[in-house]
Amino acid sequence: MHQTGAMTVPAEHRQVMIASLPQGRLEPSDFAVRTAAVPVPGEGEVLCRTIALTIGAGQRAGLQGSASYAGAPEAGRVMGGTGVAEVMTAAGGLLPGDVVWAPTGWQEYSMHAPKVLTKLDPTIDAAEHLGVLGTNGLTAYFGVRDVGAVQAGDTMVVSAAAGSVGHIAGQIGTILGARVVGIVGSADKARLLTERLGFAAALDRRSSDFRADFKAATPDRIDVYFDNTGGDLLESALFRMNRGGRIACCGVVSQYDTNNPAGGPRGVPGLLINNRVRMEGFLVFDFAHRYDEARAQMSTWMREGRLTALVTEYQGLASAPQAFVDLLAGTTTGTTVVRL
Amino acid sequence: MHQTGAMTVPAEHRQVMIASLPQGRLEPSDFAVRTAAVPVPGEGEVLCRTIALTIGAGQRAGLQGSASYAGAPEAGRVMGGTGVAEVMTAAGGLLPGDVVWAPTGWQEYSMHAPKVLTKLDPTIDAAEHLGVLGTNGLTAYFGVRDVGAVQAGDTMVVSAAAGSVGHIAGQIGTILGARVVGIVGSADKARLLTERLGFAAALDRRSSDFRADFKAATPDRIDVYFDNTGGDLLESALFRMNRGGRIACCGVVSQYDTNNPAGGPRGVPGLLINNRVRMEGFLVFDFAHRYDEARAQMSTWMREGRLTALVTEYQGLASAPQAFVDLLAGTTTGTTVVRL
Repeated sequence: MHQTGAMTVPAEHRQVMIASLPQGRLEPSDFAVRTAAVPVPGEGEVLCRTIALTIGAGQRAGLQGSASYAGAPEAGRVMGGTGVAEVMTAAGGLLPGDVVWAPTGWQEYSMHAPKVLTKLDPTIDAAEHLGVLGTNGLTAYFGVRDVGAVQAGDTMVVSAAAGSVGHIAGQIGTILGARVVGIVGSADKARLLTERLGFAAALDRRSSDFRADFKAATPDRIDVYFDNTGGDLLESALFRMNRGGRIACCGVVSQYDTNNPAGGPRGVPGLLINNRVRMEGFLVFDFAHRYDEARAQMSTWMREGRLTALVTEYQGLASAPQAFVDLLAGTTTGTTVVRL
Repeated sequence: MHQTGAMTVPAEHRQVMIASLPQGRLEPSDFAVRTAAVPVPGEGEVLCRTIALTIGAGQRAGLQGSASYAGAPEAGRVMGGTGVAEVMTAAGGLLPGDVVWAPTGWQEYSMHAPKVLTKLDPTIDAAEHLGVLGTNGLTAYFGVRDVGAVQAGDTMVVSAAAGSVGHIAGQIGTILGARVVGIVGSADKARLLTERLGFAAALDRRSSDFRADFKAATPDRIDVYFDNTGGDLLESALFRMNRGGRIACCGVVSQYDTNNPAGGPRGVPGLLINNRVRMEGFLVFDFAHRYDEARAQMSTWMREGRLTALVTEYQGLASAPQAFVDLLAGTTTGTTVVRL
């Protein structure tokens, strides 16, 4: 144990390591928990204690190696990830006890330069900071508003619509006046979207009637497709886009949990030309200068009861690998949060 | 023969009919020339005599049936197409002897409502009206400027770069300050682009060294890809796009002359996301309100010697099917024109 100002820090902490890069589907055994020394901060460094982590499907892409925006994690490293943490040591204007958004990784303690930390309102729960007000919510906000450019009266389709980004994207579409159709992986999730989150319709992509259901649910075809999956759903949507339609490419979850990604969707580029469709990939980081705008708007919508955050919670750092496997298997809804 | 004002019109004329929708590669035998009565114009109708036709690769897509923007031609109909024609009968402000741009189809005479005709400067040759100042040139202009949004200093790649649209698109890119790399189907065409049209580099996609050549010719990767082909070249370009790059989807010539279109390019949507790439299909008709702007600019560039029009000419209506086959086989360069 060592003392840092008023805070007491143990000598050792637990970390979740990447034991092996997954071959095929991710398994809990691709990770291993180990005990390591808590780092001692030097001048200008901030030691943080992780309060909660969020896990996103996009992190699986990182484990595929060089093809991802997230860089290339390697076996033997601490698994990366974003969390809410408590500041243990003063530096760069931050004081012990401050609550921050940090690239904690999957570990109990982490050390950072102050500039990578964002101070948060400590009266708001960590799950909200990691969900609606975090990367998931910001991704949904800019993807729907700026990339999808949703207009009132549009038909908007969202894939992985009960997921961390999808459930927020769909609700933002509704708030902006679109008729929103969600695509999910189970009938239970479909009911959740229509009964609790105000989606106009929701479809189970595993249903044998999916093709017919998809047509029936989009009688005016599709103006905006918010794509979290790529693959077959992207291809299906391409064939139903309206002239001038927009496809916001947010994620490719259908291709993450595999070493054998499928070919690209038929209809590219032919259908893009015939229907003058714009397809645009984006990452939330490109909108960093507008995060405050987005968070203020989302907070207002939540206060007004127009935006509901779904969260699936796990307890304890050691549950993180199973939470990740569950997320990829589609058994979680909303933001997946691991509380330490 | 009948008289229409001062113009003498024969009783019969020749038409090129679609004899059969092509199975696999297009062949001249998919067309048949027949003789038919010249239509007699009613009130408000304009009879036109075709001076010259242009043929574009996109017309092959129409012969695949419903998948094309061009509608679905059928066996037994006159082959469609755009031409420059002489007005034979006065109507809607047009007078006999006026030269117009018209959806003539592949025939010697055609009849139209005045509103579908555009009066042209009769001192400019028909090949120029059909090339740089016609659909090809306008497509290149808006595709490069508006969809590709080329900026000075960009690396721009054009596929089918010796083709009707490509050779103009590449030159416009150069004029706007880009370093333009053309991809073509022969070493001769590559030389034509660099020696006569000012391309910075040109590559033969049939060369066994193509992959290495492509990398070497795009050391700063690609900011704008003007895609006339789809297929493998689109996939290759996707893997070399810069962050924030734009792909202007103009045509899919790699998939036209077949009944078995290939699957879509790998990397969609994953690479679009990683590199924040925008991919947008367009048709020139959506820019109709700006045709005058484009034609004025292109005329200026030609007068200044900065824009050179390539034309491959055929003589006589009956040569149109062979011209079309040659175009799809890649043996023509620039705008393909059939003079009657």
